This record gives sequence, structure tokens and C-alpha cells, in this order.
Amino acid sequence: MNEGTATQPATKKGEETRDRILAAATDLIHQRGYKATGVAEIVAASGVPKGSFYFYFASKEELGRVLLQRYRERQREELARIFPEDAEAIPTIRGFFEGAVRMQADAGCKSGCLLGNLAAEITENEELRKELAGTLHDLQQALAGAVARGQARGELSTDFAPEAAADFFLSVFEGSILLAKARRDPQALEASLSMLARYLETLRSVAASNPPAGKEGRA
Amino acid sequence: MNEGTATQPATKKGEETRDRILAAATDLIHQRGYKATGVAEIVAASGVPKGSFYFYFASKEELGRVLLQRYRERQREELARIFPEDAEAIPTIRGFFEGAVRMQADAGCKSGCLLGNLAAEITENEELRKELAGTLHDLQQALAGAVARGQARGELSTDFAPEAAADFFLSVFEGSILLAKARRDPQALEASLSMLARYLETLRSVAASNPPAGKEGRA
Repeated sequence: MNEGTATQPATKKGEETRDRILAAATDLIHQRGYKATGVAEIVAASGVPKGSFYFYFASKEELGRVLLQRYRERQREELARIFPEDAEAIPTIRGFFEGAVRMQADAGCKSGCLLGNLAAEITENEELRKELAGTLHDLQQALAGAVARGQARGELSTDFAPEAAADFFLSVFEGSILLAKARRDPQALEASLSMLARYLETLRSVAASNPPAGKEGRA
Repeated sequence: MNEGTATQPATKKGEETRDRILAAATDLIHQRGYKATGVAEIVAASGVPKGSFYFYFASKEELGRVLLQRYRERQREELARIFPEDAEAIPTIRGFFEGAVRMQADAGCKSGCLLGNLAAEITENEELRKELAGTLHDLQQALAGAVARGQARGELSTDFAPEAAADFFLSVFEGSILLAKARRDPQALEASLSMLARYLETLRSVAASNPPAGKEGRA
């Protein structure tokens, strides 16, 4: 079912138009949600003629799919940057959260996480749900990879599964962004970060730690 | 701005009609979201004449507010039952999560948490956002209360704030329900529960524990 990436633009100008539509749609959907955003609004916000939309996208669902595919590609580059192979696990995982806290606080905690919002909103649409699940999977795998490498290098205790830890971290991430959004206040993110930092210290392998927990692990 | 609770039904029959509208609306909004649910659908699903809706509720927003107020009242009773004053903190907090895992798994992880969904969806509507934040606040306070009592009784270490721990737990709760929904799979909930159980063991006060961590705290 993955063929339908609509018309690939043949010209540079065509590509720019398509990018403009996608950028406007991403903003609107992030702020208002997928269902509440209409094609007419996307067209108006991107400043392209209405015909252009249907030249590049067969439908709004099509646009949603392409938008998520794009997001996933960019996220892959981001993840490679945030989770380099040779970086120590605990500071890397903390860094990932610290980045999220900063971003949400800067944005006034208004719009939350695009993926999290879509996960809450998209239930019946199986195509979009799968695309979304794939994007969340990449995020979970990046976290699991950092944990597994940390375990292999003897930084982390090995009595828990990297995948389970990654699910947990991702849950903390999405959940605290959601709470911050509902409250319009980054406090939930800061609290979660401090409790998570504390938890991470308890996951250090006993061998690796003459525990520096007191130094950086406390809330 | 809290006066507008529309018409209070004067008769038993009126109350039943209003309840029917609220029950149908709660189901639809839980499944499809607030924005995607129209008054016409609510009227159709509840089987009442359309005029009835506007007799009891001035608008869809009004209905949303009453629905959240109701949800909050019921949640208060639930929370009093789940978090009794004298119960030990760690098993109580675990029990809260175990209940959520069971409920979501039974429901095929399809609809997620009504509050979480609304938090993701409602951003611009300040009235509804505040109502929602209040309902989440009760949930957070129930968790914070369990932590504070556990600390006062010497069950839990006292080097972290009950409020921060509660924000963290609530984030894990909402985030893992969201992931389970995006994946249509309760695995994220189970993983989060096992990692949370492990974390809870590390929060035991050193005095209280000849640590039973090895027995029940491991994933």
C-alpha cells in the first residue's frame, strides 16, 4: 500500500511548491490537529493555487502520509546526530530529554509533539496509524540502541531489556509533553527530567559506578 | 466563567435524557476526538430529538465542559477507591498502573485515554483546556498524596518531591497509553509497567528496605 506518494514534481519549481504545501500543512496540523485542518486552509496558508494541491496530492490522507514520511526521514537524521554510536548512554539519553524540554518551553508548551498529537487523534485511519507507528518505532529504536550499546560497553546494568527501557523512556517523553501542553507549563517536563535522571543513575552497572549518583543523579 | 452549566433538568425524565446525551457524547469523543464529533452525531447516537440537545446544552463547547466536570466527579470517587489513605505507597501506585494496562488491553488499545486524547487535541479552547488541566490535576494529586504519605510513614526515601514524582508517574501513564494506541499493542504499557516497578523499588527508603528489590522490583 505504499505506492501512492502522489505525483513526484518534475521541476525545481514544482518541488518548491510541494514543499511549501507540506510545510504549511505541518504547521497547521501540529497546531490544530489533522482532522480539524482542511485542504482549503492548507492551500490558503501555503499561498499556492488550489489546483496545485490536487496536482501533488490525491487527497488529504495522501498528504498526511507524505508528511509523516518526510518527518520520518528528517527524524532519522536528527536521531543519528543525537544518538552517535560511541556516545556514553546516560548523558545521551538525558540530552535527548533536555533538548525536548528546551524546545517545548521555547514554544510555550502550546502545540506539544506532532507525533504524540497524531497518535491521540488518529485511530480509525489505519494507513496513517501505521506510518505514525513506524516513525515512533525509529525513535524507540534509537533509544533502545543507546541502551544496548551502554550495556555492551558495561556502562549500564544488563538485567533489563533495551526495548522495554526504550518504551519506558519514550512514554515518559510523550506523556510529559502532553501534560505540559494541557497545563501550558513546562513544569511536568522538568519534573519528569529530574525523576528520569535519578532513574538513569540506578541503571548504571555496579561495576561501572563508584556511583556518581550524588553528583548528577538527584532531582 | 463557570456559571454556564446550561439548564439543570427539573424532572427525572429530563435528567435521564441529559445523561443519555452525555453518555453518547463521551463514547464518540473518546473514539473520534472532540473536534471530529458533531452535535448531529451525538443526537443520533443518543436517540433524543435534536431540540433536546439545545435545551440542555447551549453549545458543543458547553457539552464538552459538562462532560469534563462529570468525568472529574467520577474520577474523584475512583481515585478515593484506588488510593486509600492507609495503603502502602508502592503497591498502590503499581496497582494504579496495572489497572490501566488491563483496561487498555481489554479495549484492544484502540481509544487510549479520554483525557490524554483531549490534551493532545484541545489547544486553542482555553475553557476546555482549563477544565481538562483540573481533571489531570486531581489525578496528579492522588499520586502525589500516595507518595507523600509513603514518605511520611518511612516507606519511601524523602530526597525527591512528591509532586515531581507524581508528574513523572502521570507522564509514564499517559505516554504509554498513547504509544499502545499508536501501535495497537499493549506492549508499551507492559514494558513501562515493568520499568516503573523497578524504579519504585529504588525509591524505597533505605531504612524501610532490607531491599526486597530482587524479589519484585526487576523487569
